[in-house]
Formats: sequence, structure tokens, C-alpha cells
Amino acid sequence: MSIAEIAFQGEPGAYSESAAIGFFGDCRAYPQDNFESVFSFVQQDVDHFGIIPIENSLAGSIHRNYDLLLRNTLQIVGEYHLRVSHCLLGLPGVRLEDISEVHSHPQALAQCERRIAELGLIQVAETDTAGSARIILDNGVRSAAALASRRAAEVYNLNILLEDMEDNPANFTRFLIISQNPNNPIITSTEYKTSIVFSLNNQPGALFKALSVFALRDIDLSKIESRPVQGRPWEYLFYIDFIGNVNAKSSMRAIEHLNELAPFLRILGSYPRHMINNS
Amino acid sequence: MSIAEIAFQGEPGAYSESAAIGFFGDCRAYPQDNFESVFSFVQQDVDHFGIIPIENSLAGSIHRNYDLLLRNTLQIVGEYHLRVSHCLLGLPGVRLEDISEVHSHPQALAQCERRIAELGLIQVAETDTAGSARIILDNGVRSAAALASRRAAEVYNLNILLEDMEDNPANFTRFLIISQNPNNPIITSTEYKTSIVFSLNNQPGALFKALSVFALRDIDLSKIESRPVQGRPWEYLFYIDFIGNVNAKSSMRAIEHLNELAPFLRILGSYPRHMINNS
Repeated sequence: MSIAEIAFQGEPGAYSESAAIGFFGDCRAYPQDNFESVFSFVQQDVDHFGIIPIENSLAGSIHRNYDLLLRNTLQIVGEYHLRVSHCLLGLPGVRLEDISEVHSHPQALAQCERRIAELGLIQVAETDTAGSARIILDNGVRSAAALASRRAAEVYNLNILLEDMEDNPANFTRFLIISQNPNNPIITSTEYKTSIVFSLNNQPGALFKALSVFALRDIDLSKIESRPVQGRPWEYLFYIDFIGNVNAKSSMRAIEHLNELAPFLRILGSYPRHMINNS
Repeated sequence: MSIAEIAFQGEPGAYSESAAIGFFGDCRAYPQDNFESVFSFVQQDVDHFGIIPIENSLAGSIHRNYDLLLRNTLQIVGEYHLRVSHCLLGLPGVRLEDISEVHSHPQALAQCERRIAELGLIQVAETDTAGSARIILDNGVRSAAALASRRAAEVYNLNILLEDMEDNPANFTRFLIISQNPNNPIITSTEYKTSIVFSLNNQPGALFKALSVFALRDIDLSKIESRPVQGRPWEYLFYIDFIGNVNAKSSMRAIEHLNELAPFLRILGSYPRHMINNS
């Protein structure tokens, strides 16, 4: 395979770019202004990929990207769990004691609240984490630092003054790799995961019946989430990830069975499972 | 009852403050720096309340607040659905054509991307929406506007130049009202909702069995969400909201039954249901 071309939302040095590199190893990663542009990039060429964050262990699921998965007809071909570790980045030659203010996205600043207070730094909000690193480089202010990824330090030639700034180390983001082609580009596991979305009529026991199609076949679920359908207050969408390849006989039977119960059902993708690495 | 005292995270004019006023009508709302301080305020006095966002229709659940609910022993005593409508706010006397930049939290800016592009405004990130309104007032710059709530316009004496700036009008945040005292302060509905959290051992069919306790009693679920337990990769927590008062016989029986299956179970609260108002 030639080198993978993959779009991500954000500036060079964004966590999504780190995840793309983590997944593919060597790749050409293309920054995009928003998630819509990531999907457009993938629609342009059968060999293009996109990477999107879908859930964070602290902040929860990113429903916006579930919406885009539903609105487009792309396939999930892989997943990647990234440990989000915020680094304090300063200009070359600057020492920690020179720093008096820290720039970043408000969510990153909030995740590092305790350490920032201990260091006595003034917080300055920016549009994104990688952008805050670029601003430190562009402005050349020696008393200012950015909270961003290790990758952003490389991209913007900044020094890592401190690592693991976040108050809660259990900070993981799960990314999905999307493509027109349902075949996964890289085998990262022998175990597969399948993501589906379906609706159910709002009747007591409807979800119970739906889950029976998996339970009766000893298929293990790794995620379930319900969400009201926009504009139809009594209907729900369910997102389920189960362990298994969609082409395995038991998975196929379970999905056929679920089709009898669900007014709407779509297979979002079947892809090698990526285990969370706590190191 | 004397006037309610309620803590919220953010500055005066924050959406959480609007939700507190929406829920209580007249109340004394106390701004707090972070969610931990909201919980501390409620722990201080049996008559104190707190209000916390728990899920947004576009962004998803706020796991951070689920964690705090688990770590504290407070009760959910109410819920409130707030339609999040971002207003463009300028200094008194300023007209729309004078504005060239817009300040707000990056998430609010992203939610209004289309309108901001149409208006040709430069985006400036701030720590929160209400804080951006305060900054417009403090700095007195006539070419800058804030994206914030209608309430923020009142608090900071700004003019509403445009309303409903968001690209997607289906933007609701669900807030929970918390207290030491499990009795709900205001009856807003005759129908009750109960929120519980429980863990299950990771066995195929475990969730199916757990849901049977509701299905067998025709109890309707309004939300289900799974989440890995931090540090225990094979265990899951489930958050379920069901329709019904926890003191009703069928609810009590269902919870007793679930207790037989779940290694951990806690009732987070039982409270009058608040219907989403689409107007």
C-alpha cells in the first residue's frame, strides 16, 4: 500500500493528528477546519481516510460525529485509543520559572486546573490546543506557555517544560478511522468490533427485546448508548458496539434478527479492536 | 419555602444560571469556579441546591458530573431542559454593521460557525460564554461582540444584536438539580423519573438480564449509557433513567431484583420529569 492520506480536524499538532500517526505509523495527515471537511476529504477519493474523535473518557461521547456518520455513507474501518497527555510547552531556552501565563482550549485548561493553580499561572483561552502552541511560537513571548500535545512541541519547535499536566490520568479519547472502502487498512488485532445504530419504537421492553438478539447468541457488547431522535421526542436511536466480525455467522444472524425489531438499522463498520494501553 | 439558594458553575449570565431561574423562578444563584465547588456548596447546608449540566443534545453526556454524583452522596431532586440559544451581544448603541469580531467559548463559536462566516466575523476564544459578555462590557470595544445567553445581556447591560445564532436549533442541555434532601422542591410534573447507576460483571448477556427487571414490569427507560469503570478495563457502569417514582411498588421490586444481579447499585434520585419544550 502507498502511504496513507488521512484528514483530521484541527491544526498540525492536534491530538487527532497524534492518533492518525499512532494508527498508521507513517502517513500524510491533512488538517481540516471542521469535521464536515474531514468527511468531504474522505468522499473525494476511495483511497482517502479520515480520523474523528468519538468519545472521551472524561467528557463523554461526541454526538456531533455520530450525526455525521449517520448523514454520510462512509464505513468505520478502524479504532484507536489515545491517552490524552497535556504538556506545558515554552519557547526554546525558556525555563519553567519564566512562565506566568498558560494558553490553551478551555477544556484542556480545566483538565489541568490543579497543576495550573500550583504553578500560579494565568489562564488564557484559545480555539484549540495545537493553535495555542502555534501562537506561543508566532508571538515569541517568553513568559507564555501552551498546553498541548507532545506532537505539537515537535511541529512548532517548542520545549516540553512539564508533561502529564492533567489532574486525572484516566484521560483517553477513542478515535474512529473512516473510509469509503470497508476493508481495514491495517490489521491491529485478531479480534473484531462491529458498530451499529438502530432505532426502536418507544415501548416498554423494546430495548430488552433488541438486546436479546445478542444475548441469545452470547455476543458481548462493548458499548451502548441511547439518544433521542431529533424532532421525534418519543423515538430513540441506540448506538451499540459488539465484539465480533460482522461476517461471522452469529453476528449476521443477530443483525437479521434485530432487523425484524428495528424500524431503522445501519452497520457503521466492522474493524479490528484496539485495546486501551494504560502505559 | 424561603427563596431557594442554588450554586452553578460559571460566571453570572451562564446558561446554568438561566436553567436555575427556569427551574425555580425566583432564586438566589451563586456562581462557582468549578463543578466541585457546586457540590461543596450543596454539602454546606441542608437548604442549599446545586444545578449541573449532565447532557447536551449535540455534545453528549458530561461524564465529569456523573463522576461527581458518584463521589458525593447528594440526591437528584429535579431536572430541567434548557434550549441553548446563543445571542450576539454588543455594547449599547452599537449596530450589527459595527461588529468585526466575536468572542466566546470555542464550543459556542463552533456551534455558530455558519452564521459567523456569513457575517464575516473574526473569532476570539474566551474561557466561557458569560465571561465573554463581561469582557465586552469591561473592554468597551465597540467593534467586538460576545456569543452568550439572553440572560448575559441583562447581567452585563448589553444589546442583543441577533438571536438564535446556532446552526442547529436542536441544541438542548439537560440540567440536574442536586440537594442533600431527597424531596423535590418544586412539583413540575405528575410523572416521575428515577436515575440509577449500577455495575455489571462483563459476561455476555449481563445487560440483557439487568434490563429484564424493567421489561418484566413494563417500566419504560428514558436513557441508558454504558461506561468503562476507571482502572478496571473489564467492568462497566450503566446509567439508566426510568419513568416512575422510586417509591412505587413496581420500581421498588425492579430495584430489589436488579440488586441481585449488580455488584454495585445506587439510586441517584427520583424527581418530577421535565418535558423538553421545543418552543
